[in-house]
Amino acid sequence: MCRWLAYLGSPIPLEDVLVRPNHSLIDQSLLARNLYLPHDPRAAQFRRSAFPTNGDGFGVAWRGRGGTIGQYRQIEPAWDSQNLRHLAAQIESGCFLAHVRAAPGGTIAEQNCHPFVHGGWMFQHNGEINGFSALKRELTLDVDPGLYPSILGNSDSEACFYLALSFGLAEDPVGALTRMVARVEQARRDRGVTAPFRATMCASDGAQLVVLRWVSPDVAGAQAPTLFHSAGATALRTIDGGEERLPPDAQLIVSEPLELHWSAHTWQEVATGTIGVFRPGEAPVFTSIELAV
Amino acid sequence: MCRWLAYLGSPIPLEDVLVRPNHSLIDQSLLARNLYLPHDPRAAQFRRSAFPTNGDGFGVAWRGRGGTIGQYRQIEPAWDSQNLRHLAAQIESGCFLAHVRAAPGGTIAEQNCHPFVHGGWMFQHNGEINGFSALKRELTLDVDPGLYPSILGNSDSEACFYLALSFGLAEDPVGALTRMVARVEQARRDRGVTAPFRATMCASDGAQLVVLRWVSPDVAGAQAPTLFHSAGATALRTIDGGEERLPPDAQLIVSEPLELHWSAHTWQEVATGTIGVFRPGEAPVFTSIELAV
Amino acid sequence: MCRWLAYLGSPIPLEDVLVRPNHSLIDQSLLARNLYLPHDPRAAQFRRSAFPTNGDGFGVAWRGRGGTIGQYRQIEPAWDSQNLRHLAAQIESGCFLAHVRAAPGGTIAEQNCHPFVHGGWMFQHNGEINGFSALKRELTLDVDPGLYPSILGNSDSEACFYLALSFGLAEDPVGALTRMVARVEQARRDRGVTAPFRATMCASDGAQLVVLRWVSPDVAGAQAPTLFHSAGATALRTIDGGEERLPPDAQLIVSEPLELHWSAHTWQEVATGTIGVFRPGEAPVFTSIELAV
Amino acid sequence: MCRWLAYLGSPIPLEDVLVRPNHSLIDQSLLARNLYLPHDPRAAQFRRSAFPTNGDGFGVAWRGRGGTIGQYRQIEPAWDSQNLRHLAAQIESGCFLAHVRAAPGGTIAEQNCHPFVHGGWMFQHNGEINGFSALKRELTLDVDPGLYPSILGNSDSEACFYLALSFGLAEDPVGALTRMVARVEQARRDRGVTAPFRATMCASDGAQLVVLRWVSPDVAGAQAPTLFHSAGATALRTIDGGEERLPPDAQLIVSEPLELHWSAHTWQEVATGTIGVFRPGEAPVFTSIELAV
Repeated sequence: MCRWLAYLGSPIPLEDVLVRPNHSLIDQSLLARNLYLPHDPRAAQFRRSAFPTNGDGFGVAWRGRGGTIGQYRQIEPAWDSQNLRHLAAQIESGCFLAHVRAAPGGTIAEQNCHPFVHGGWMFQHNGEINGFSALKRELTLDVDPGLYPSILGNSDSEACFYLALSFGLAEDPVGALTRMVARVEQARRDRGVTAPFRATMCASDGAQLVVLRWVSPDVAGAQAPTLFHSAGATALRTIDGGEERLPPDAQLIVSEPLELHWSAHTWQEVATGTIGVFRPGEAPVFTSIELAV
Repeated sequence: MCRWLAYLGSPIPLEDVLVRPNHSLIDQSLLARNLYLPHDPRAAQFRRSAFPTNGDGFGVAWRGRGGTIGQYRQIEPAWDSQNLRHLAAQIESGCFLAHVRAAPGGTIAEQNCHPFVHGGWMFQHNGEINGFSALKRELTLDVDPGLYPSILGNSDSEACFYLALSFGLAEDPVGALTRMVARVEQARRDRGVTAPFRATMCASDGAQLVVLRWVSPDVAGAQAPTLFHSAGATALRTIDGGEERLPPDAQLIVSEPLELHWSAHTWQEVATGTIGVFRPGEAPVFTSIELAV
Repeated sequence: MCRWLAYLGSPIPLEDVLVRPNHSLIDQSLLARNLYLPHDPRAAQFRRSAFPTNGDGFGVAWRGRGGTIGQYRQIEPAWDSQNLRHLAAQIESGCFLAHVRAAPGGTIAEQNCHPFVHGGWMFQHNGEINGFSALKRELTLDVDPGLYPSILGNSDSEACFYLALSFGLAEDPVGALTRMVARVEQARRDRGVTAPFRATMCASDGAQLVVLRWVSPDVAGAQAPTLFHSAGATALRTIDGGEERLPPDAQLIVSEPLELHWSAHTWQEVATGTIGVFRPGEAPVFTSIELAV
Repeated sequence: MCRWLAYLGSPIPLEDVLVRPNHSLIDQSLLARNLYLPHDPRAAQFRRSAFPTNGDGFGVAWRGRGGTIGQYRQIEPAWDSQNLRHLAAQIESGCFLAHVRAAPGGTIAEQNCHPFVHGGWMFQHNGEINGFSALKRELTLDVDPGLYPSILGNSDSEACFYLALSFGLAEDPVGALTRMVARVEQARRDRGVTAPFRATMCASDGAQLVVLRWVSPDVAGAQAPTLFHSAGATALRTIDGGEERLPPDAQLIVSEPLELHWSAHTWQEVATGTIGVFRPGEAPVFTSIELAV
């Protein structure tokens, strides 16, 4: 269970959402709150209360100089990283993704840290494909052979990204993400995996944010990871007791709100089973994920 | 707030206490339980419930080949470290110290990870010298000039170790540790520091364990960090639901018991204000810390 | 271009070959000498004289407690690692592999550090499959589906290991390694790769060392990476000007001799195109690699 | 022996000097060339040809947003760091310092990586105070008590920086650096250290570069580390065979030129025993270091 955020709007220094809010992403690296884990088989491994720690790596990707994409990833925890604080204070961007990782039993490597970046797209994920080790080979085989060698890590998240790229992410983001979800669900059925595929994801080309919230519909009681988007003016309470105003055009999508106490008016839940597209100066457009049967 | 353990007895693989118990030191790295923090000014920084994470480094030191002392330290968290699991499975010792670090606001460096090793002695600490930045210079000046260049990090813990070495740790461990505590308390008085010096410490030459529990007596309501020692036969419940028996001569001293559910019969609290000396095959001897006035 | 060594014989502390000789593996991490690179296209990238640095990671695997295999890997360079020096001084083994990595343009990750360990076997490699990114997908597809999810990194070396495991390494090491070489060569032909596959490899189950030296025979002038084995009594000159005697039954296989000045009497070259099997107390047996056409 | 560079001029992306030139700082991390080491006692430790590797860490500090100073440091080698390449491509600055570290026998820690930053000043060093462990205590005692707790590492370089800060770096950079050199030389005399203090240093407040080149004058044959500054228009040959032009107002000071083949017309040596001050749009001003006797 990881935590992520994505920002679109007038350029701001990254620290305005990564560091300064009283429940910033750095704070969530040490103690996340909004977690639905009671039915997750992995919860038992670490006992419920241990899961809130997202200390297995950090990453950020952003629209940078001349439309290129910048990327920074580290395996050390976010909370005490001096590099992270300095970079967040110095780098400004109008479109960025950031992620803190929890990888119980997983592989700790810079290459497994989100966001992943390839071909002008950034991508991050919270959740998991349960039973991934049984599905990994066939899912990876469906990755475009030209893209296959660019896979550097061994995570389910990176496999999802390369499937989406193979299915046309650049041309049709909503369609490509839908096909990726369908492909994973098919693999689950083919292999008889009964535990759910759970995901919140964000893909971006630096101009728009495409987000997804999903849980396998065949698993009774399974819940998707949480996902919220900001609605209306966003004034965030800061760690020093003050308040900061984000630009009027700021759009934020987050695993959990950046404030310890928050209102459902300003942080709205993204519905499970939908894909949302956020573009500058427009209201987000949500589409239901319909899997062809 | 860190967590540590120390073992003395017939040689065992380190994993028997670091990894296998259901509340092993690795488990404590992700979620420690026995914490007294309500009056600690540093608690506010991270909010109480965030403090149980000890993810800022790990270390172990042990009596090794031919009486030499081995040491391994890393800044990455203990919980998912493959190296740690392998080393704990392969290395056997009859005397070792292990430590998981929480360093809110501190400096993340291998050199600041415990246990420290110098001149045939190992040393580890949980707690803090409040106001250390104001006291550091004068305390460090009292370190023997011949030892001074061996200080590699910048922590209060390492300063305490080198003070104890300077005050005769090798010849008179109980006396040296007492003089170190007295020196720190004097510095607090000289500088008017009102927040307490809190410590559980363990020093060892590979043949004995010398442990200390302390809190500044002038601070009303201040509590020492927790410290327990095993009493009688130790059978530990393991993470896989079984039970393992440590050797009959095993002596364990721990920040908190290695079991999620434990009995005060088998885990006895070390009294605040005392130094305990544990030797093979003998009952521990406790001495009150009396500061000359 | 990496450097490795493998040891079989009476148990010794790892430091006797990793640290103490005057051209130990640690020394080779900073400045390797025996390199044939003039015809290698990758040499141009870093200019010939830059290549001797093997600073992209270190690893060791060894036959440990109760016949299990221990493993330690790190991405930091070997030369100044305190952990490495401590572990090498404390761990004794009668069968171990050690490796320092040079990965120009490659992916720096603990998971890409050698030796790899799976199913009771250790494996390490020096050299490269030129054009690997074009061959990777089909080679990986030939890995046994049950083994596929255990691949953690993205290197050509790990692919070779899992191919050999898939081809029966445990039952028939010489046959499995031969089939692996044949499979890689076939992939080169199928894809029209003209640059050579170059390799020295070592596989071990803790009881024997199976080593291989290879270069694609179709590439005029291409040379295999160097490989030597010790012959007769081995007395190594040490970094402090002394000399240490290894046990009489010691067998060493190395990318380059562990001494700055050495004799071809005591360090014999392994012939290109052969596989050598080293067993305790026996003379090594060499077999030519014959690829079925 | 480390390598560093400093830039002052119109803002450029850091990669223009860190990555793109054919002997960029990244290239120098793997193979530096201009080294005077024959008389240095430390050379024997690693043999002359091994010394060119600067793989013990990397760092950069720059004038950033709103006049603040940014800082990034890592212990992993520069040459294969993806983070470094990304940051160098994205961050632009008109004043920055960058450093690759070689620390034979030293302590590998982020806190020992240059540039150091404190109180609006950046600082980096190449060279060493021979016999530092004997001098460290008294030199550190001369650091202003208010600055003392900010020392995080254990290197001679950081001690020099804090001495310079204590001696008035902010008010009188040339005077403060001169007093720092004098203080170190006095300590050498007091302790009878016969091996030289060797240094090239750069201090900057983001508006000017103050550089220093020094070797103890009492040691016959001792040579200062190399130091060059650019003179006139700077067109650098790039790693891909092209050429890039730096801004007309660019001023560069480097341990060695950023080109494999270079002219003494465009890269002029800084005289040993001088301090140079570089300000925007002005010719550098050099002052002899005169130690009061």
